[in-house]
Amino acid sequence: MSGSPSAPPADELAAVTLTDSVAGVVEAEFSQRVLIRSIIRRPDGGADLAGQRVRVGGWVKKGRKQRAIAFLEVNDGSCEANLQVLVDAELVTTLGEVTVGQIVATGTCVHVEGTLKVPPEGTVQRIELNVEKVLDLGTVNAAKYPLPKTKLTLEFIRDYVHLRPRTNAISAIARIRNALAYATHTFFQKHGFLYVHTPIITTSDCEGAGEMFQVTTLINDAEKLEKELTKIPADLEAARILAKDKGEIVTQLKSAKASDTEISAAVSELKIAKENLKKLEEKSKLKPGIPQKDGKIDYGQDFFARQAFLTVSGQLQVETYASALSSVYTFGPTFRAEHSHTSRHLAEFWMVEPEIAFADIQDDMNCAEAFVKFLCQWLLDNCRDDMEFMVEKFDKSAIDRLEMVAATGFVRLSYTDAVAILEEASKETNFENKVEWGIDLASEHERYLTEVKYKKPVIVYNYPKGIKAFYMKVNTDNKTVAAMDVLVPKVGELIGGSQREERYEVIRDRILEMGLPLEPYEWYLDLRRFGTVKHSGFGLGFERMILFATGIDNIRDVIPFPRYPGRADL
Amino acid sequence: MSGSPSAPPADELAAVTLTDSVAGVVEAEFSQRVLIRSIIRRPDGGADLAGQRVRVGGWVKKGRKQRAIAFLEVNDGSCEANLQVLVDAELVTTLGEVTVGQIVATGTCVHVEGTLKVPPEGTVQRIELNVEKVLDLGTVNAAKYPLPKTKLTLEFIRDYVHLRPRTNAISAIARIRNALAYATHTFFQKHGFLYVHTPIITTSDCEGAGEMFQVTTLINDAEKLEKELTKIPADLEAARILAKDKGEIVTQLKSAKASDTEISAAVSELKIAKENLKKLEEKSKLKPGIPQKDGKIDYGQDFFARQAFLTVSGQLQVETYASALSSVYTFGPTFRAEHSHTSRHLAEFWMVEPEIAFADIQDDMNCAEAFVKFLCQWLLDNCRDDMEFMVEKFDKSAIDRLEMVAATGFVRLSYTDAVAILEEASKETNFENKVEWGIDLASEHERYLTEVKYKKPVIVYNYPKGIKAFYMKVNTDNKTVAAMDVLVPKVGELIGGSQREERYEVIRDRILEMGLPLEPYEWYLDLRRFGTVKHSGFGLGFERMILFATGIDNIRDVIPFPRYPGRADL
Repeated sequence: MSGSPSAPPADELAAVTLTDSVAGVVEAEFSQRVLIRSIIRRPDGGADLAGQRVRVGGWVKKGRKQRAIAFLEVNDGSCEANLQVLVDAELVTTLGEVTVGQIVATGTCVHVEGTLKVPPEGTVQRIELNVEKVLDLGTVNAAKYPLPKTKLTLEFIRDYVHLRPRTNAISAIARIRNALAYATHTFFQKHGFLYVHTPIITTSDCEGAGEMFQVTTLINDAEKLEKELTKIPADLEAARILAKDKGEIVTQLKSAKASDTEISAAVSELKIAKENLKKLEEKSKLKPGIPQKDGKIDYGQDFFARQAFLTVSGQLQVETYASALSSVYTFGPTFRAEHSHTSRHLAEFWMVEPEIAFADIQDDMNCAEAFVKFLCQWLLDNCRDDMEFMVEKFDKSAIDRLEMVAATGFVRLSYTDAVAILEEASKETNFENKVEWGIDLASEHERYLTEVKYKKPVIVYNYPKGIKAFYMKVNTDNKTVAAMDVLVPKVGELIGGSQREERYEVIRDRILEMGLPLEPYEWYLDLRRFGTVKHSGFGLGFERMILFATGIDNIRDVIPFPRYPGRADL
Repeated sequence: MSGSPSAPPADELAAVTLTDSVAGVVEAEFSQRVLIRSIIRRPDGGADLAGQRVRVGGWVKKGRKQRAIAFLEVNDGSCEANLQVLVDAELVTTLGEVTVGQIVATGTCVHVEGTLKVPPEGTVQRIELNVEKVLDLGTVNAAKYPLPKTKLTLEFIRDYVHLRPRTNAISAIARIRNALAYATHTFFQKHGFLYVHTPIITTSDCEGAGEMFQVTTLINDAEKLEKELTKIPADLEAARILAKDKGEIVTQLKSAKASDTEISAAVSELKIAKENLKKLEEKSKLKPGIPQKDGKIDYGQDFFARQAFLTVSGQLQVETYASALSSVYTFGPTFRAEHSHTSRHLAEFWMVEPEIAFADIQDDMNCAEAFVKFLCQWLLDNCRDDMEFMVEKFDKSAIDRLEMVAATGFVRLSYTDAVAILEEASKETNFENKVEWGIDLASEHERYLTEVKYKKPVIVYNYPKGIKAFYMKVNTDNKTVAAMDVLVPKVGELIGGSQREERYEVIRDRILEMGLPLEPYEWYLDLRRFGTVKHSGFGLGFERMILFATGIDNIRDVIPFPRYPGRADL
């Protein structure tokens, strides 16, 4: 930070910020500046604010020096557009060693105060800021700044995960992600759902440990023990000598016929020395490494006294709250330790999982459809600028797609009908995967249904029992389960859900049928034993929704800090 | 599920649900029933709905049989109050093996349709439901149900984490928690902050690995390898025999002067057998156990190719977004592997962490105060019933406390002044911990300031440099840092925050001064190298806020699935 003039006292500040001075139009915050969005995004582009004194802060996107004036395009992340800020060289040079040449560098942080004015005719901007006071400057060594140029690929900036939010693309995606998160909460709250924080650390190993991350303190504890053990031989030696010495003292005192008091004091010292030695000897027998019991790792010694994992889904746990509070949802991070290097997989990703008591598969589909429509409409209403940016830079059809989904009823198709359609289609289309009743639909099949056949969202329901999870409700045909997937253009499967099996005997048999042990599911079975309830739910992959909305291709670009095999930066 | 009459077709349903039939007063959902809250919480207790046909679902809190009628107090979790539901014995017995005696058992799930009517004079309820159709029943074996009685301690039900949401206390806390979560998002969105999902898995070991959980796939991989290795001796033996046989065949063919084609075919088979043997021999040399390199665990083989942990705070990562998008916040789970068995510590807990660019410590305190007041007012406006329940059952002063905090300016006190006050107080009060400038305030000191001295929230700021983290801004006195803690009655420290050190040289020196390595912080230093910005933020312990609001004593009761040493149920 070069040059940090002290801030004016609070009463002076009140006069220079726009807060309250222009009724209801400029957002107040906790940083005594105004958001650039609140100037530029006014109906007339902010022209009506001419003459107002404001304080703004942001980072220089582009700067140029013209005579003694620096023209800076400043962005504060509140919207995609920049505010043009004019700084007189004299104002800068008073700050010390900073030159005007420096502040025009991309990435410079400026915190300034000045008067808004209408620029000369012929400029695109409707308003610009004439700086009267430079409050703070954060300069950039342009030669070392990793993101100086304006044209950088998403792949390139992935290596600068801490700086990439300063790019137009990542900041637009961040605003869209933020909007979708708040829209999610608003939708469910509006419909009487309660938000439940399901656990991240779980001891329910639901789908086999193979794809789960383990959470442990055993390795750290073993390393600590190892350090202690290296010190033990020396300590042991010292303790042995001490015990021997104390013993000799007792012998000497006895043979010298010393007083009882003297002897008993020496004996008591000997006792302490022997006890200490014993403790050390026991410790020295501890084996280094992770504790074992009966030839296996002794998880009794782990933090939670059993093996623990990162959750792959909050569904089973959130069902406990649905079985008491009726309509609930969870929205949080979930994890898969799969070695997938695709553009569609992350090791850490966010899921939205509602669970509705007294709801069947039809209700579930209604909820899923209403939710997706709501999200699309929300973006159209609240993120128009950012969506226009995505259309311009990444996907021409992004806004059209949102409008279509928000306005169109979703096709609902049974799995059996879907297979019939795909079998028919495979006469003309070359699918890589053969279509026949019983297969799990491949991505190419899903894309065909939603992108080619119907050109709108499609819900496929009633899948074969054999390819679906044990907790899904078995239909009366005993061949299919009441599962449903929502397929949308661009990403394919966006949502997977089902009615849950609420009949105790049926679900118990399904668990056994699949070769799973009953014990870890006893609590889940309890929900069926005691006041069981018809219920349904689904999971929406939050990053998939962002891919769908923005048209971005790689999932690593729509989450702030992507985690995948070999990479977990920061 | 005993007796599941098939649901009526959709058009019939439209006639029996209240949706749209009583304008704007009864909430529609995705389960074709109405929320009990929307009946009972009307200004007249729902009496104006008499004569309406509705469908409701819920769990029996208390039931009794009187002549041929079952009187059920039914709760669906939408509010603390129950709806009285009357079911004629005849309706039940038609369902098969279920008796009226069974459905009155606590915990029974009922899904019913009927007409609302005003009960006879002298009853507390203003409305009750006369059931005409039982849609679904989920019975309970009362003898085995773990939570049959109405009076159960919070400690007792902690062992039934999957069933405890059915109790009045835990469901009220769940609604309060839900309200506080949505209030949090609403507050920050209203003030132009963007929600950023900071990572759960992190490779930034910020405060020393000792208190962090490790995330790994090494143990699982080692176990897989071990299984493979046990099969190797047999495979090796078979491969050796095969190679020997193939060699003999070649020898025989050569001595029998077979054709070149025959010989070269045999040679090529021999080659394959030898290669296979070589591969197996190499594999057999792999050591079982966790991979080592230079005497240490080889984290290059772990999922992320380096050691990874569960995050202890999203602050450092969210700063990267504040340094681009100005006002941001994160709200998610954080983790500590501390062996604390207190009523105030969890291994997994939720934190709200805003980060504000262009904000100093004063702005930070303003934001913290406004946020806490907003949360309190939100509960007063939206959770009155549940708060009254908490007052009745757990803490007489819970509502008074919320009202006081919502309406009172917080005291702001420098650490130096706070110590002077505590030194004065220690003449009369027996503190366990000695007070002197330089100490970290103990809980008893914090409680004294907020509960005894001021009887309202107190913000203590400008703490001694030596007891605070490296990232806090060093004040001009070079003795203190711009840190602040918000102390509130009942829980003590609710919020901890600071202005962040934005000067590159100063923060680099602070890292070194604390004996930390620079390398893991290079990305954090980059934020100061390139366009550094004055910024501030804080963290609010979400569970502490719930303890403060509800008056509940043990933190394990205010999170749905508590994790602490030795326990991580479900």
